[in-house]
Amino acid sequence: MAREQTEIDTLITMLAKLPGLGPRSARRAVLHLVRRREHLLAPLSEALVAVAEKARPCARCGTIDIGEICPICADPARDDSILCVVEDVGDLWAMERSGFYRGRYHVLGGVLSALDGIGPEALRIPDLAARAAVPEVREVILALNATVDGQTTAHVIAEALAGADVSITTLAKGVPVGGELDYLDDGTISAALSARRAV
Amino acid sequence: MAREQTEIDTLITMLAKLPGLGPRSARRAVLHLVRRREHLLAPLSEALVAVAEKARPCARCGTIDIGEICPICADPARDDSILCVVEDVGDLWAMERSGFYRGRYHVLGGVLSALDGIGPEALRIPDLAARAAVPEVREVILALNATVDGQTTAHVIAEALAGADVSITTLAKGVPVGGELDYLDDGTISAALSARRAV
Repeated sequence: MAREQTEIDTLITMLAKLPGLGPRSARRAVLHLVRRREHLLAPLSEALVAVAEKARPCARCGTIDIGEICPICADPARDDSILCVVEDVGDLWAMERSGFYRGRYHVLGGVLSALDGIGPEALRIPDLAARAAVPEVREVILALNATVDGQTTAHVIAEALAGADVSITTLAKGVPVGGELDYLDDGTISAALSARRAV
Repeated sequence: MAREQTEIDTLITMLAKLPGLGPRSARRAVLHLVRRREHLLAPLSEALVAVAEKARPCARCGTIDIGEICPICADPARDDSILCVVEDVGDLWAMERSGFYRGRYHVLGGVLSALDGIGPEALRIPDLAARAAVPEVREVILALNATVDGQTTAHVIAEALAGADVSITTLAKGVPVGGELDYLDDGTISAALSARRAV
């Protein structure tokens, strides 16, 4: 088509690249936005500008949030004696959604990967060792993904923290809530069996 | 949770309200954005600001696009003798994607609806009559949805244009390309049968 790209086309192209969206859903979203310009477009663009300007890695835990120190690290009500190690910001968000955990976090920013050349230094593991060495800290929970890379990383972290006076724990493995045995893989069933508990 | 809403939460909440997105996909999108702040977040917020500032209804056809007159109305290469009447901006975009139509448009901004109290004045039908009365215009295509409201609107428009020296046409009804007869409704099959053509 001879038609030039307008700002609207640019916006659709950019939105279409986000995970979970494609050209069709990006078009629908932009259509919805331009139809409700006053009510939606201006507030959304302000919200994006605010995040673009203010979002940064937390100097303490490494998550991405607003401000030099993220709201979780800055919250005096949280338990300083537990550190939960997660791979990435999304995992921290998932932990927070459960509403169960009230300690602090340490975000690695990835997992060890020989293939991608990601070593311990890139993952803030020395930082973690320093934080775990603080006398207040009693427990480090390794909440890493149950993948090969995640488990390798957990192993390396456990070694790096061997000298510190903390107990190192990992998330329990087993049947997910609502899960049906028939659909679970053998590894999960084996793990759930070997970690079985008295009723 | 005791945690305060940050700008990131606000952004997720706003994105989650867009059609086709929900809380989960909005979270994934924002996570993707904050992880790639430099490359994605700033350009996207600029694109949104540009659209928020510049998008407006075209003074001629009524679509929403950039500028006082939209690029289609401003394009001297398009055919002034045909006017295509569509219900909404999304329908115009759909027509343009087909790449087949090279005439002008008239966007009603809705269809007649007794229930919602939408009458002919609200739909820019007098405007359309004035545009159709220009001697250059030879044909008005009613590209309205094949719904009851769409067909009622087509009927009213046809009456409003009765005095103008233009031929009034509508889109053909029939089997969609790739469509299987077994999955089509009776009305479509009847329409396709009665409009059958020699091979």
